[in-house]
This record gives sequence, structure tokens and C-alpha cells, in this order.
Amino acid sequence: MLFERVAVIGVGLIGGSLTLAARRAGLIGSVVGVGRGSANLQTAMALGMADRVTNDVADIGEVDLVVIATPVRSTGDIARALAPVLPAGAIVTDVGSVKQWVVAAAQSALPEATPFVGAHPIAGSEQTGAAAARADLFEGAVCVLTPTDRTPPAARDAVAALWRGVGARVLEMTAAEHDRALAWTSHLGHVLSYALSRAVGAAGVDVGVLGGPSLRELTRLAGGSTPMWRDIFLANDAAVLAAIDAFASALGELRAAVALGDDVTIDRLLDEGLTARRRIERKS
Amino acid sequence: MLFERVAVIGVGLIGGSLTLAARRAGLIGSVVGVGRGSANLQTAMALGMADRVTNDVADIGEVDLVVIATPVRSTGDIARALAPVLPAGAIVTDVGSVKQWVVAAAQSALPEATPFVGAHPIAGSEQTGAAAARADLFEGAVCVLTPTDRTPPAARDAVAALWRGVGARVLEMTAAEHDRALAWTSHLGHVLSYALSRAVGAAGVDVGVLGGPSLRELTRLAGGSTPMWRDIFLANDAAVLAAIDAFASALGELRAAVALGDDVTIDRLLDEGLTARRRIERKS
Repeated sequence: MLFERVAVIGVGLIGGSLTLAARRAGLIGSVVGVGRGSANLQTAMALGMADRVTNDVADIGEVDLVVIATPVRSTGDIARALAPVLPAGAIVTDVGSVKQWVVAAAQSALPEATPFVGAHPIAGSEQTGAAAARADLFEGAVCVLTPTDRTPPAARDAVAALWRGVGARVLEMTAAEHDRALAWTSHLGHVLSYALSRAVGAAGVDVGVLGGPSLRELTRLAGGSTPMWRDIFLANDAAVLAAIDAFASALGELRAAVALGDDVTIDRLLDEGLTARRRIERKS
Repeated sequence: MLFERVAVIGVGLIGGSLTLAARRAGLIGSVVGVGRGSANLQTAMALGMADRVTNDVADIGEVDLVVIATPVRSTGDIARALAPVLPAGAIVTDVGSVKQWVVAAAQSALPEATPFVGAHPIAGSEQTGAAAARADLFEGAVCVLTPTDRTPPAARDAVAALWRGVGARVLEMTAAEHDRALAWTSHLGHVLSYALSRAVGAAGVDVGVLGGPSLRELTRLAGGSTPMWRDIFLANDAAVLAAIDAFASALGELRAAVALGDDVTIDRLLDEGLTARRRIERKS
């Protein structure tokens, strides 16, 4: 067993799926679930994700691992609440989609001696809460770890073993590399999906009759959790804004070519999109 | 049998799937396939979509139905080539994703007495060509008909019976209503997917490691046919440009709120997107 006693702060889709999967694999022992919503905590208990639940981070008791699985900008407050109650030697990790902001917030709030391992399992869905958790959510997924100079190698290895044990492929990179890539591969797509859903809603189009699968697909990501995505956009704002601007520029080029009736340019822009799409399809 | 002898101009995904499905349902007899690419025509013959193939629209012979299934802006040229050779009483229809432009081009090129029925089966995939055709492509799909004052009711009813016979639900609306709705529910999504693919390609992000399912999903539509989509964007340019501009405005609002770090506005914009998404999911 990797960790005898685990605290999971935020027993939602990711936190809940991790405890289900890690328990099934025999990697963790007892679990205390921490959260604000009593109904969700009861669901987590009923589904076997936690043995005990509490609303208070300071009430985690004796644990050797703490997993922070809440909206990323709450990391600093949670780390500050953990600092006075953390048992010596306990490792703290997270699952957030932004790493620079989270690692900086956690490391500045936690005692120097507390091992913090930034982690991001790239998995999920637009569903939220403990009820959506699945023990197989991480099978075949990538989990990125972003250790720093302050992260003890043993703590990094233990967290890596946990993620490998639930079926993920573990990669290591800097938090900055992670954040720039994720702005492109995930955060931008969520921005676009929210904007598209909102614009379609405002246009008053009868999507009931003419919607079709492509609109459903393109707006799926807008079904996510507002606090979670608001925090991701704000905690990774520089990279997200740069990706939005580059996208808007590509959109503007295509718009201009359509407005001008410029077949040749449209064909070139669509062919470039097709080529990039084939690379994405092949590699992902 | 609804139509004894049918000509299909463009034996691709839609044209090929229609002949496969209509033959399986016993709705049509012999089929002549017309196209420019000899390899695709041979595939169409081999897969049972046509009994005879030709590169020349003027070579269709005796037919009672002509289905135009080529990129939409070729409709005028094809109708002009058909005009001198069409047998009396033959019905002409199409399958294009734009209706005002197509109906106007066809009706101005065809003799006054030739019945033209604008049609758009809302089905397909990003795959192209006869090899991608499937006899079940239209099962459960919507097919929009846009008859005009010039369209004889009997011709409209015969084309409606063909589409119902291959499993589609037939709806009637004006070409203008169709084009505005489709700009939102389909054309805009393709514009965004092309622009996103191109921007991601230009950003040089390693999508191989961190791509994930959401990027694959959002760029899928950019896998389509350049001539087909270039023609759709240009033939429906006013509605497509209006949808792009409304989307860009929604994107700009979200961008501004992220740049300002304005939690309250971001939450409102994401909640509005989520609400619209739920309506899309429920209705489509």
C-alpha cells in the first residue's frame, strides 16, 4: 500500500474517481473526504469514496497524503488551512489543470519541509460531482507531474506510483511548459465552447430541429463547472489570453477571405486547417 | 418504385449514400453516376451505387430524377449543362447545405417547366467520397425541403417520399429560414473548427502528448472537404459572417473579463453558456 491514510479535499469527479480507482488497486487505505456540500459528501460516502467526511480542512486528522481537488484558485487558502494541522512527513499533491499558479500558491502557504507535488491527470468530462466519478477514469490517460527544486524525489515518486497504479501514463515537465500547452489543448477549447453556446443561445435559433451532432459536440465543453473553469481561465490567464488572440487572428483571416469572396485564400486556410487536424488526429 | 431512372451528379458521401439507401428500400431503379474523378466513379460502381458512370452531365440519358450532390456553387453550371438534355418531366433536386443561393442558381438556369426541389439532408461526417457512403446515413436524420412558388407540389411530394423512404424526417421551410439557422447550427461550427485547427497547428504545441479528447472533438469538423466547405461559406456568406461576428463578440466579452480578472462577469458568461448548452443538449 502506498498511502495508509488519505485526505481528499474536494470529492468531485476527479477526487472521487482517484479514491475509487486507488482503493480498487489496493494503493490507499482509509480516506477522509473534505468538502463544502453535504449532499455531495454523503454521495461520496455512499459510493465508497470516503470512510469519513468533514466540512473542515483542519479536521483531516492523521494522514500521509493530502489530495487537493478543488477549483485551482482555492489552493492557497486550502494550503494555509492545512499548514498548522499537517502531520510531519505528509505529502500534499493536487489535480489542477493549471500548474504555475497552483504550485506557487501551495509552496508559499505550506511549510518549507512539506513535500508538494503538482499533478494534473488529463481526464474528465463535462460532468461534475461525486456521482459522476468512475474508477476507470484514468486508465490510459496522461498525468503530468510538475515537481520543483523544492519537491523531494521520494515524494514525486510516490505520487507518480499512485497515478501509474490507477492506469495513467506519468509525464514530467515544468509547470510553465504544462500551462502553455494546456492553454492550447484544453483551456482555449473550453473558452470557445462557452462563447459558442452563449452566442447560439442569444441568436434564438431553433436548435431543436436543425441542431445536429456537430453543434452538440462543439458545445459539450460548456457543460462543465463554472467555478472550476473560471478559476482555470484566471489562474492561467496569460497563456489563455495569448491562445484566444492567436485563435481570433486565425478566425479573422478566414472571415476576411469570406467577406472578400476570395476563393484562393479560403482554400489555403481550409487546407492548412485540414493538415493541422490530420496531425492532431494522428498524434492524439 | 418512385423513380425508375436516376442520375446522381457527384457520387460522394451524400450522393452515394442516397443511392445505396434508396436502392435498398426499392425506391429507385437504375442509376447513372456523374463525376469528374474516375477513381471515385469506379469505387461507386464497385460499391453498387451506380450502374453506369460518366464524366459528362450531358450524357445522363433518359432519367426521371436528377440529384445534384456537388459543392453548392457548381449548381448553376450543372443546371446549365442539364437544361438542353433533361427529358420532359424529369425532376431536379439537390442536397446542398445552402438553399437560397442554390435554388436561385438552379431555377434561373433550368427551363421554367423543369421542377426543381431544393433539399438538404442534415447528415454526413468529415469523411468524403463514395468509399465513405453508408446506406443508413439518413436514418433518423432531418431533411429540409425548400420549395418555392415555382415548385410543383407533386415534385415536392415525390422528393419528400424519397427522403422519408431512406429514413429521414422531412421538414419544409423557406430557403432563407434554412440558411440563417444552418449558419448557426453547422456553418459557424465548421469555421471555428478550421480556425482552431489552423491556430493550434501554427502554435507548435505538442498535441501528441497533451492533446486529449476535447481537442480532437473540437477540430473534427476541419477534416472535411475544402471545396465543399469553401462553397458553403461563400454561398451563405451574409449569414455566416453575421454568425462569426456574433460569436466573436461573445468571445471578446469572455476575453475582456479574463483580462480584467473579473470573476463576477466570467461566472455570468459561463453560466449563460451552460444554460444555452443544456437547451442544445435537451433539444437536439
